[in-house]
Amino acid sequence: MNSQEMAKVANQPLFPMPFLVIFLVLSIISGFGITLSEAVPIVRHYKWEVEYMFWSPDCVENVVMGINSQFPGPTIRANVGDTIIVEMINKLSTEGLVIHWHGILQKGTPWADGTASISQCATNSGETFIYRFVVDKAGTYFYHGHLGMQRAAGLYGSLIVDLEEGKKEPFHYDEDINLLLSDWWHKSIQKQEVGLSSNPMRWIGEPEAILINGRGQTNCSIAAKYNTSLKQCELKGDEQCAPFILQVKPNKTYRIRIASTTSLSALNFAIGNHQLLVVEADGNYVQPFLTSDIDIYSGESYSVLITTDQTPSENYWVSIGVRGRLPKTLSVLTLLNYLPNSVSKLPVSPPPETPDWEDYARSKNFTYRILAAMGSPKPPVKSNRRIFLLNTQNNVNGGFVKWAINNISLALPSTPYLAAMKIGINTTFDQNPPPETFPEDYDINNPPPNTNTKTGNGVYQYELGEIVDVILQNANTLNDKNSEIHPWHLHGHDFWVLGYGDGKFSAAMDEKKLNLKNPPLRNTVVIFPYGWTAIRFVADNPGVWPFHCHIEPHLHMGMGVVFAKGIHKVERIPTKALACGETAKVLINNPTKKP
Amino acid sequence: MNSQEMAKVANQPLFPMPFLVIFLVLSIISGFGITLSEAVPIVRHYKWEVEYMFWSPDCVENVVMGINSQFPGPTIRANVGDTIIVEMINKLSTEGLVIHWHGILQKGTPWADGTASISQCATNSGETFIYRFVVDKAGTYFYHGHLGMQRAAGLYGSLIVDLEEGKKEPFHYDEDINLLLSDWWHKSIQKQEVGLSSNPMRWIGEPEAILINGRGQTNCSIAAKYNTSLKQCELKGDEQCAPFILQVKPNKTYRIRIASTTSLSALNFAIGNHQLLVVEADGNYVQPFLTSDIDIYSGESYSVLITTDQTPSENYWVSIGVRGRLPKTLSVLTLLNYLPNSVSKLPVSPPPETPDWEDYARSKNFTYRILAAMGSPKPPVKSNRRIFLLNTQNNVNGGFVKWAINNISLALPSTPYLAAMKIGINTTFDQNPPPETFPEDYDINNPPPNTNTKTGNGVYQYELGEIVDVILQNANTLNDKNSEIHPWHLHGHDFWVLGYGDGKFSAAMDEKKLNLKNPPLRNTVVIFPYGWTAIRFVADNPGVWPFHCHIEPHLHMGMGVVFAKGIHKVERIPTKALACGETAKVLINNPTKKP
Repeated sequence: MNSQEMAKVANQPLFPMPFLVIFLVLSIISGFGITLSEAVPIVRHYKWEVEYMFWSPDCVENVVMGINSQFPGPTIRANVGDTIIVEMINKLSTEGLVIHWHGILQKGTPWADGTASISQCATNSGETFIYRFVVDKAGTYFYHGHLGMQRAAGLYGSLIVDLEEGKKEPFHYDEDINLLLSDWWHKSIQKQEVGLSSNPMRWIGEPEAILINGRGQTNCSIAAKYNTSLKQCELKGDEQCAPFILQVKPNKTYRIRIASTTSLSALNFAIGNHQLLVVEADGNYVQPFLTSDIDIYSGESYSVLITTDQTPSENYWVSIGVRGRLPKTLSVLTLLNYLPNSVSKLPVSPPPETPDWEDYARSKNFTYRILAAMGSPKPPVKSNRRIFLLNTQNNVNGGFVKWAINNISLALPSTPYLAAMKIGINTTFDQNPPPETFPEDYDINNPPPNTNTKTGNGVYQYELGEIVDVILQNANTLNDKNSEIHPWHLHGHDFWVLGYGDGKFSAAMDEKKLNLKNPPLRNTVVIFPYGWTAIRFVADNPGVWPFHCHIEPHLHMGMGVVFAKGIHKVERIPTKALACGETAKVLINNPTKKP
Repeated sequence: MNSQEMAKVANQPLFPMPFLVIFLVLSIISGFGITLSEAVPIVRHYKWEVEYMFWSPDCVENVVMGINSQFPGPTIRANVGDTIIVEMINKLSTEGLVIHWHGILQKGTPWADGTASISQCATNSGETFIYRFVVDKAGTYFYHGHLGMQRAAGLYGSLIVDLEEGKKEPFHYDEDINLLLSDWWHKSIQKQEVGLSSNPMRWIGEPEAILINGRGQTNCSIAAKYNTSLKQCELKGDEQCAPFILQVKPNKTYRIRIASTTSLSALNFAIGNHQLLVVEADGNYVQPFLTSDIDIYSGESYSVLITTDQTPSENYWVSIGVRGRLPKTLSVLTLLNYLPNSVSKLPVSPPPETPDWEDYARSKNFTYRILAAMGSPKPPVKSNRRIFLLNTQNNVNGGFVKWAINNISLALPSTPYLAAMKIGINTTFDQNPPPETFPEDYDINNPPPNTNTKTGNGVYQYELGEIVDVILQNANTLNDKNSEIHPWHLHGHDFWVLGYGDGKFSAAMDEKKLNLKNPPLRNTVVIFPYGWTAIRFVADNPGVWPFHCHIEPHLHMGMGVVFAKGIHKVERIPTKALACGETAKVLINNPTKKP
């Protein structure tokens, strides 16, 4: 079976036992009145072969991690309630493999979260792992590698969950267009990782290109055509790096889904002459608001509505530029192509300009506008527990640059936490939980004093159902007068963003500013330089869940923590998720330990 | 503990239980008369951390797989009877890891042979595997990676076994010098592997440099100094790529140990003005013979004696060039430095010229001279079984270029054979043994007809103690009028090389030419273009042992077979060697299967 045939099979619903069970249950609930034409969850079965392949994401040939010979990987499109089965075949020659389903809550299937060292054993070269989970919330999601820096090697794709058939979104649109944004380096991830782990550390630098649906151009941009004509920018349109064109008909409303799986870059998205109506963030409805452009950080997703009400005989620029870091990459441009105009008809208006990269006031203004839509779930009024997570950059073990949380830089154990906890092995990770706060007199405005910073792998344990507040506190890096943006992503949960502020969080001053009325639900939230961000979540999902900066090199350098709860409630962990490290050893030598 | 301290510890004998047992046994045998100053096997314990690191093997910075921050890895030096324990810690971020101890017979420890998919599960990122084996035969050996193409990534080092203390070699020398030869590409192994597995196949091309003890120069050679002065060839001597200088005193005899772990290249070694007396091949004594130069294929090792009887006020060139393929690399040169001359004193005589790369008559002449030393073990007079292995290059599955043996291209299973056989799992590899011969009318002088060439992973099974002859038969590749040299390496055994010939082996014609009088014992043997090579071995070592072309890309493309015997006699396989794939699953779900 070739990859095209596979894709064909993959998109057909199969009817194995679990489907029949769901069908029967639904039939009983509805008094046998349900018919197949109505909303019936189905099982969507995919067979994916993952391997390196030659590809030219930015017109420069390289190797990427492809799935079924595609880059980015195939888009999964499902309805709420559907069961997704991905049979992942590791065809990499020497590397392990996992896939994380970013934004999917994995209720009842924490072993399917796809995090190496946390939810499962990485799948060995040549072996197959079967992910099986239900998508229970509509929204714009994506999936990506979660071992080493395999995401940066190109292991990602889109996952779109539509409402149950027949159900309506709280806003109207005619069609949708899906954009997955990423950034791309010519240097292999092996070289990137060695650089980050070296002493002195070698930073990965800025990306060679920004990609839209896996397509971009290095040292070029079709913008160049706007001003001048550069040889290397002359594309016929059938190249792997040729821009993804947004084709629209006049006088319609489009839902543009935008997700960012960048390794590093914070991006800004704008369309010439068109306002964007923001309606969704991370799979949650937000109070709609109009904006000329959106900022999007790694790990986030948005839906914006546009109306194609401009001069129909023209095309318009779509522009994506870098924010938060001094860009060394030209903005990537593509076209909003009003059909039936030719794509070769260039816009008369200039491309939208990306706002100044360090205009944080503007970034904050955009971010603060994101609030929950009317009727969204509200947060509990009070939390049971509040933890503070101080984000610092530190020197560890004589000069290795790491990121640390409350003075501990996360170094994942080789045996996955979920397996170790379920089986009751207490030797594979630090049994002492990390600190829940940091010294009151910590000076966030200067480089860290670097006392006792160490690597660690302890876990924050919660009671099931506990209501937790986390205050993410930013600080100065190792360099004078420098603090960076970090987008933090929580696995297995959405959280309410109760507020943001500048400086150090002060309970006395800031408590009362927290928004308990209409805080947005999200799975990723940013902390601004020298600022804090407060979130609240209900620890109601049994499993082990990382909470970490979604910037790939930052996570590689230790910028994350691990949350766990209700492991006794986790059931049916596949053997393959347990078969490595100490868990394998214990289970083989002492089978009574089997969960 | 830093790597220097580790190395220090590593070279000190430890005295754990096994040592005490050996000591007691020896004491009893010798009537308690043994003392520590005599030949007492010791346990040599090494702790190795394997990870990528920045390195400039050929003056061009790249990443290599280093061991304890060294490239090549640390040299193991032991005495016959010693136990080697290597605690291998996989610090690679995403890759599995094994280390093969090339030439070590692994009697009683087939699980320690270090072949992924064959003798053990690859060790996952972050985990540790402990190799433990006895070195029972003196000689010049080496170790290297045996998963994917990790050998080509630089994962190798020397392993020298001396006789028991107090015992004498059958030849005299004053000191020895150890040279490990390799070849080096700037392209990552990930890119090399993708190219080889692509359709159309992209060949890796010729190496950028030949390395002596991990040191070489690209597009340069200190030879350049001999004729002209190239800027890029000006080395101070402390660079990672600065040549390894052979320092000698006048009027002494030196044993130069030369082993080749090249990925591809056949090499020729010569020293200006000095004859070489060949005394050892692959850890076996050979009938000494004088030669101006030696050919050395990947997987082979030799010891040659030289006498430093030339003008003591001069230095002499050591030259290593490529044979068997049109070289695109300059010969690598270094110096035989007669002390106390300065290394900056260049030789007056020109460097030895590498013989023409396609002068196969000369290659054969050298190879045919290698015969067993007097008193070497003789082969059994008759074999119980003879198998023919036809080496062809084929198109498989519509254009993928592979190498095949009797029309089957080896594709290793993900569950190791040894584990599967020991536990009795028969689903992980083809239970039908591959064919033991090929059609009598096969035309070795033309490209293959390509009928039914397929990938496979069946095993040749032997009775324990069976005496086996293998006739390796070379043939034309996919290109007209082309046949290549392949050095075949057998794990777990030495074999007698009974003979070589041109054309197709004919029992009627060639049988009587086989040498049963003084055939050399080896672990690696070459087949010449369009020729055959006959070997004999006793299948007396329980385990699963690959027999394969030692050219890394050829093995990657399927050029090998797997031998197995006496698995019921294999004991004490470490759990870690079993904990992957179907073995892990079966052992966890059905503990009664535990061996």
